[in-house]
Amino acid sequence: MNIEDRRRLVQVLLEQRWAALATLDDAGLPSVSFVAYAPEPDRAGCVVHISRLAAHTRHLLVRPQAALGITEADGGRGDPQLLARVSLQGQVEEIPRGSAEYDAARTRYVARLPQAAQLFGFGDFVLLRLRADTVRYVGGFARAYTLTGEELRRILAE
Amino acid sequence: MNIEDRRRLVQVLLEQRWAALATLDDAGLPSVSFVAYAPEPDRAGCVVHISRLAAHTRHLLVRPQAALGITEADGGRGDPQLLARVSLQGQVEEIPRGSAEYDAARTRYVARLPQAAQLFGFGDFVLLRLRADTVRYVGGFARAYTLTGEELRRILAE
Repeated sequence: MNIEDRRRLVQVLLEQRWAALATLDDAGLPSVSFVAYAPEPDRAGCVVHISRLAAHTRHLLVRPQAALGITEADGGRGDPQLLARVSLQGQVEEIPRGSAEYDAARTRYVARLPQAAQLFGFGDFVLLRLRADTVRYVGGFARAYTLTGEELRRILAE
Repeated sequence: MNIEDRRRLVQVLLEQRWAALATLDDAGLPSVSFVAYAPEPDRAGCVVHISRLAAHTRHLLVRPQAALGITEADGGRGDPQLLARVSLQGQVEEIPRGSAEYDAARTRYVARLPQAAQLFGFGDFVLLRLRADTVRYVGGFARAYTLTGEELRRILAE
């Protein structure tokens, strides 16, 4: 993976705020929704803050396997196939409310998504971390790479 | 579903070009990628044109269950939770190359995505149709609706 693609991978992951979340529904079928996220560069993961009342949250609390897809926004011009995008596949785990880790993740999340601050007052919301086992980056034609979560973490640490 | 949400649902589906595709990987786990798509309003579905060499295509040729998620683009300002988004869940089927249906779908696809015209010359590309069984629209807080594919078709026909 050359330095230009490494730079774009980091940029798309750190600069976007809105991701596609793939989960398994009650029948084990693929489901997709959109969620705000905050990246955790030191953990090769992302945090999402979602309501237990939402279908995707119910899916994840039963089957924690998930994938989060993040893309450069399509401005509607040019060839969309050239947009850089990254998918993180792994499992989610709930960050326990009241823990120091929860407070740190909330602070980081709210710094990126200040409009979401008030949602932390609602009892039905949970903070989930997706830790990537496998990372797929596509930067255009013939620019696709598969990485481990650890490789992503090292790229983000550079 | 009020008239404003119906209008936004139609708009996001017809005006966007770039969708998140959720599939089941070889282990039956959720996977997500991004694909260009063309809507087929008269069928409550979308067409994608993807390479057999890509992982998502291999997934779909084994397990045709899929979901396609389409969102208004995030401009990076304001609250992303207010973006309108729609998910189509269903099965894909291949449109046979050489059929009249293939030619019609290709024409429609290339009209929206002219840069993709050359890809129709490559033997590894297939044209797949996702027909929605279930449609989920979210237009912001407390503006979420679940529809059948037939209900979507009727809204699009209006």
